[in-house]
Amino acid sequence: MATLGDIGVSALINILSAFAFLLAFALLRIQPVNDRVYFPKWYIAGKRTIPRSWGGVVGKFVNLNILTYFTFLNWMPQALKMSESELISHAGLDSAVFLRIYTLGLKMFGPITVAALLLLIPVNLSDGTLSFLRRDLVVSDIDKLSISNVHPESYKFFVHISMEYLFTFWACFLLYKEYNRVASMRLNFLASQGRRAEQFTVLVQNVPHVSGLSISDSVETFFERNHPDHYLCHQAVYNANKFAKLVRKRNRLQNWLDYNQLKFERHPDKRPTRKVGFLGLWGKRIDSIDFYKEQIKILDKKLSMERQRILKDPKSITPAAFVSFNSRWGAAVCAQTQQSKNPTLWLTNWAPEPRDIYWKNLAIPFVSLSIRKLVISISVFALVFFYMIPIAFVQSLANLEGLERVAPFLRPLIEWSFVKSFLQGFLPGLALKIFLYFLPAILMILSKIEGHVALSVLERRTAAKYYYFMLVNVFLGSIVTGTAFQQLHAFLHQSATQIPRNIGVSIPMKATFFITYIMVDGWAGIAVEILRLKSLVIFHLKNMFIVKTERDLEKAMDPGGVEFPETLPSLQLYFLLGLVYMVVTPILLPFILVFFALAYFVYRHQVINVYNQQYESAAAFWPHVHSRIIASLLISQLLLMGLLSTKKAANSTPLLVVLPVLTLTFHKYCKTRFEPAFRKYPLEEAMSKDTQDRASGSDVDLKSYLADAYLHPIFHSFEEVELVEVRVDKNQAHHVSSPSPPSEQDSPSPQYAYHQEDEPSYTVQHHEVEPPHTMYQYEVEPPGNIFRYDAEPQGNMYRYDTEPHYQYYHY
Amino acid sequence: MATLGDIGVSALINILSAFAFLLAFALLRIQPVNDRVYFPKWYIAGKRTIPRSWGGVVGKFVNLNILTYFTFLNWMPQALKMSESELISHAGLDSAVFLRIYTLGLKMFGPITVAALLLLIPVNLSDGTLSFLRRDLVVSDIDKLSISNVHPESYKFFVHISMEYLFTFWACFLLYKEYNRVASMRLNFLASQGRRAEQFTVLVQNVPHVSGLSISDSVETFFERNHPDHYLCHQAVYNANKFAKLVRKRNRLQNWLDYNQLKFERHPDKRPTRKVGFLGLWGKRIDSIDFYKEQIKILDKKLSMERQRILKDPKSITPAAFVSFNSRWGAAVCAQTQQSKNPTLWLTNWAPEPRDIYWKNLAIPFVSLSIRKLVISISVFALVFFYMIPIAFVQSLANLEGLERVAPFLRPLIEWSFVKSFLQGFLPGLALKIFLYFLPAILMILSKIEGHVALSVLERRTAAKYYYFMLVNVFLGSIVTGTAFQQLHAFLHQSATQIPRNIGVSIPMKATFFITYIMVDGWAGIAVEILRLKSLVIFHLKNMFIVKTERDLEKAMDPGGVEFPETLPSLQLYFLLGLVYMVVTPILLPFILVFFALAYFVYRHQVINVYNQQYESAAAFWPHVHSRIIASLLISQLLLMGLLSTKKAANSTPLLVVLPVLTLTFHKYCKTRFEPAFRKYPLEEAMSKDTQDRASGSDVDLKSYLADAYLHPIFHSFEEVELVEVRVDKNQAHHVSSPSPPSEQDSPSPQYAYHQEDEPSYTVQHHEVEPPHTMYQYEVEPPGNIFRYDAEPQGNMYRYDTEPHYQYYHY
Repeated sequence: MATLGDIGVSALINILSAFAFLLAFALLRIQPVNDRVYFPKWYIAGKRTIPRSWGGVVGKFVNLNILTYFTFLNWMPQALKMSESELISHAGLDSAVFLRIYTLGLKMFGPITVAALLLLIPVNLSDGTLSFLRRDLVVSDIDKLSISNVHPESYKFFVHISMEYLFTFWACFLLYKEYNRVASMRLNFLASQGRRAEQFTVLVQNVPHVSGLSISDSVETFFERNHPDHYLCHQAVYNANKFAKLVRKRNRLQNWLDYNQLKFERHPDKRPTRKVGFLGLWGKRIDSIDFYKEQIKILDKKLSMERQRILKDPKSITPAAFVSFNSRWGAAVCAQTQQSKNPTLWLTNWAPEPRDIYWKNLAIPFVSLSIRKLVISISVFALVFFYMIPIAFVQSLANLEGLERVAPFLRPLIEWSFVKSFLQGFLPGLALKIFLYFLPAILMILSKIEGHVALSVLERRTAAKYYYFMLVNVFLGSIVTGTAFQQLHAFLHQSATQIPRNIGVSIPMKATFFITYIMVDGWAGIAVEILRLKSLVIFHLKNMFIVKTERDLEKAMDPGGVEFPETLPSLQLYFLLGLVYMVVTPILLPFILVFFALAYFVYRHQVINVYNQQYESAAAFWPHVHSRIIASLLISQLLLMGLLSTKKAANSTPLLVVLPVLTLTFHKYCKTRFEPAFRKYPLEEAMSKDTQDRASGSDVDLKSYLADAYLHPIFHSFEEVELVEVRVDKNQAHHVSSPSPPSEQDSPSPQYAYHQEDEPSYTVQHHEVEPPHTMYQYEVEPPGNIFRYDAEPQGNMYRYDTEPHYQYYHY
Repeated sequence: MATLGDIGVSALINILSAFAFLLAFALLRIQPVNDRVYFPKWYIAGKRTIPRSWGGVVGKFVNLNILTYFTFLNWMPQALKMSESELISHAGLDSAVFLRIYTLGLKMFGPITVAALLLLIPVNLSDGTLSFLRRDLVVSDIDKLSISNVHPESYKFFVHISMEYLFTFWACFLLYKEYNRVASMRLNFLASQGRRAEQFTVLVQNVPHVSGLSISDSVETFFERNHPDHYLCHQAVYNANKFAKLVRKRNRLQNWLDYNQLKFERHPDKRPTRKVGFLGLWGKRIDSIDFYKEQIKILDKKLSMERQRILKDPKSITPAAFVSFNSRWGAAVCAQTQQSKNPTLWLTNWAPEPRDIYWKNLAIPFVSLSIRKLVISISVFALVFFYMIPIAFVQSLANLEGLERVAPFLRPLIEWSFVKSFLQGFLPGLALKIFLYFLPAILMILSKIEGHVALSVLERRTAAKYYYFMLVNVFLGSIVTGTAFQQLHAFLHQSATQIPRNIGVSIPMKATFFITYIMVDGWAGIAVEILRLKSLVIFHLKNMFIVKTERDLEKAMDPGGVEFPETLPSLQLYFLLGLVYMVVTPILLPFILVFFALAYFVYRHQVINVYNQQYESAAAFWPHVHSRIIASLLISQLLLMGLLSTKKAANSTPLLVVLPVLTLTFHKYCKTRFEPAFRKYPLEEAMSKDTQDRASGSDVDLKSYLADAYLHPIFHSFEEVELVEVRVDKNQAHHVSSPSPPSEQDSPSPQYAYHQEDEPSYTVQHHEVEPPHTMYQYEVEPPGNIFRYDAEPQGNMYRYDTEPHYQYYHY
């Protein structure tokens, strides 16, 4: 067991390494060559197009301004500068509320830490039970500060119990305030949003097949009959998997064509060539540009045929639809009510915003959904408790003997003692490390199979699964010895009162381990997060080898969103650690506090400068955060109860029984009080927004506004020409009416925006890339929702390539 | 332990006693003097006004027709005659579906019994393990037929496991079919109903106080703003507790006045007198009729003042209201959606039908409701597990010594050995018996405190609480020795796998006990139910001593509804017994089968002839019945698993783990598939009924139809004069327009009905009671919803006394 000195050394090492990472970050971030790694958000938001540079050719790559090196920690105050409302408009409500979890942690554990250190540690120290025990027993200095140091049957336990009460009330008070705040932020955010397609649209699933009627017709009939005053139009959902494949192929070819054309422009003396055969490795050598143009032409024909087939063939319409209403009130009513006698048909729910939809899962029938849920629950259970079995099996195979058998030529190398010892230490853990690395991806796949229709829900479900995994395998796994499977077995064979007792007893002993864990995973881990080492390396590698066109550069730069499925569960784990140890070993609390403060700075910086929001769920994850913190409180109370019951403080244990009951009641109250704000849309709100709209008299062209909002994104790429023309007709603006070569005279400024009152506003940006490419960049309300497309003259027509920035729909 | 012979003797005794009860019933029911006890439903339905008689003065009291004595069992075929649809219109859907539970039991256990007897008993017998054991061990003949007889580690357990699978699938299949059927019956019933106030009305609770606005105004403003196209009107809920008290007092006085007037008419020579003092026991002797008339006059003034106060004083309006809409669609939308940003305000829910409302609970605020739920859950938990503590305390007091000390004059009597032994055997159990007798009433009070707003919900919640009590104290209490509290203690200190093992082992040993229980409580108990001994005695006692007027007679006759809070849980207990023992001791099954068959006959008879429906919840209790049977299946599976694990059939136990998972999945599926039919009202349905209504063009006077539907019933009594006049204006029918003396010339027939298309139809019955009383009886759609009032000329106006037949609102 570690002494206080050991902890100090460990803390020093971790502080130094965290500091080193921060220093590296500070140096790397001011190099222009890394600008796209550390500030991609500004590029995506269109507020920066070229890296800041400090003169000269070298200055384009390396920062030569000495002054900036001296202010290398100024990202911290910079990160704090942006106000919350600015943050919401810059990075979305999700990110802003995500940061509030860290401030909640600070607010919660700040006073708790002070109170615990001032009150509990003197109480614990005053007894000195453990001093009388032999030095070599499992007693560390940390233990002397913990509850272990108090005599059994001591009355001092009442101090601990009353502190547990006090801290629970404090935590609940903060949770209530925070839930209240987040709920009202959500409602304000929704209320302040401009007109958005999802406010008027409801996703209808399980449309029944009526013989003689197409899905589209039966949707129309049904809603015209049952919502006669409110139904406006609907958008069928097409099964476009084959089409999506073709589009992906076409984009690949287009990229190659762009690359070859670029190459040709740079060296006009030599037309690029390639071979005909597989991967261009053999066969006749031909002209690349012609080859790709030819291929694209063939593919375009196929695409157009496939598109015709999809739009015509009733079989390609899935039994789901996006139904739009002429008022928010009508949509709110439809989303919240039951439509049909058979409650498994005509299931209505709010449509997620268009970029949040996971298209593949829209058409899963109800029965299949029930079975999927069952299968996935069982799989997750098995994964959490039995994941060690296959890994142990792989480990048993992947030893040195196996390696020598498979690759005898490596034998001399392996026999070398240094390599041997390295491999022996490394190989067994490899399988586990690979598994843990891919775990979030595996859980995401499981969530996808479960059949959720929105990316935000998928991420929330993945986060939940990851949390269970961490709870069992990190928290319980560290406290109770043995694998999760052995724990499960032990739990089944222990009584309900024995389990918290067994775990509770081990809790104080594991404090040093968790302190080290917090420093390694929390402090150093967060510093690694801001350094973005992986992204940095990958970006530069891609830049060297893969990036051929502007689009590739953007792809290489794309930072993705905050990884909620991983960050939320680990964040919740810190809450759990803090709440469990707050009374038992209060010395752990300052470490948690440092983690929350550091992480707050880092993620604020990252949210402002790096991550690009993938969707806006308006803080829909908050109820989960809330209920996991409540669950942590309950776990803390139960374990304290178990711990005290071994301390022969049996007469005080009943006092603690009241606390979980009160906590649960508080949770139930919060659930009914606030959760509807995250699940339903009050009619009062809907009506007041409708009235505003009507007062400003701008709901005339709602139908055309909604017409293509929920079209599968891959159709956009193909239909853009027509769509743009339709839109232009609507807008009576000729700016975009004829796709024009870059130097068109009626658009003299490289960036212009046009707004029309209460119309989705487009900010059109006009980049000059290498001719003959023009990049148009459309920023549609809300900010950040950007569509880009290349316009390229081809004969006497213009081809458009649109790329909505969905993480999952790159093609 | 009982041998087969013992069981036979017990069966014989119980069959004989059941037969004796049935015989007694058969004889008593054909006596005219008992007619109102055994056929009250027909009186209430207005289809019988005087008992059938067989000539002569004696024939009015005793049945002299010898022939009828020979056909004394013909109530059984008679009970079966009525078809289900007739039953629904005669006794309501609740009763019809209630009877379906018994047929479900027959359908479920019929095939299971046959299969189990044919397959399992030979398997069990063939081993003969127990024959080798000593005779005096706990082995009975019954055990030889049970699973106990199979060798440990025998492969024959696979037969039991496969039978458990088979039976579970069969039970689930039937449950699915039945749920489907009941759900569609419910929807059909709702669809076939005429226009009813509750279809258009939503109960709004937690109306917020807005300063400067009365509750009524703020309700009106809110719904006019948020449901502008659908809001019609609303009815405030008055806090009328004081008024109700006065009305009760007035009715008591009125009854005395009627009694005295009757007395005077019979003996016109002697005016009845009474004394002025307390309870008429002392003081000056005065004329009774004058006294009561005077008292009533004073009270009428008070009532009118109180009524004015209630209607004027804004403080007497509670923050709840019944909001009516101009279409079913509008009401369905409002009931299913969230209205306000704050989800604890403006809570909307379907209004229960007017006679189903529990008025006192309408105005409970949200926070109070949460606290009440918590407190009641804790109380019920305490009641279930610790109820023996106060009873044991009372028992320790209520012994002979205590009795002698309190009442020394009884000593000679008590010392008499016969009395002494009787008391010693009787007294200790007395407290327990009194408690068990009052238990349903206690649970009902708890449910009322919990704050439910409908009588149907109150009864369902009471049934749930009673079921938990029975499960713990009857089922588990019989299997595991010790009080519930001791069991709880044991459960907390046993592991999760040990609990089913411990209970499972005792299961086969308790089979004989439960067989006896079924015969005593099931067979004989059901026979007692049809005999209605208590009601018979009370009716005749009341008839002799209390009944003074026609209204008193009706009160004495009033059978109430089926006692759902008691019958449903005991019914569910039989399902539990059957499912638990079907594989373990199949010989128990025939006894259950007999119970279901007998109970079906008896309750069918009772529902047709005796019970008067108190409210119509349209089978809202079915989801509870379904889920409790599922729970019984799960208990059965868990206990079989525990039992098999002690039989060293450990390798077969994992096979059984799959079954609970499948059963739970089935339950979840059923819940999502069918339960919304019991909680929500699909818009499709609402819209189609609205369209029908509109097509028949009869929604012109909806507002006046709904105006007073949800007025507190006590106001009806007072306002009836005005209301009748309002109604008459609406109907343009002068039949009732001027309350007329009995021999009015324009109503020559004593019974006439007038219907108007799609109007609530009144069947007005006109009874001649003793003059000057006239009894009007209004039957309003649906059948059974009867309003009666006495019309009595007083000066030149007519006073009306209405008595809606609410069990809880007799006054």
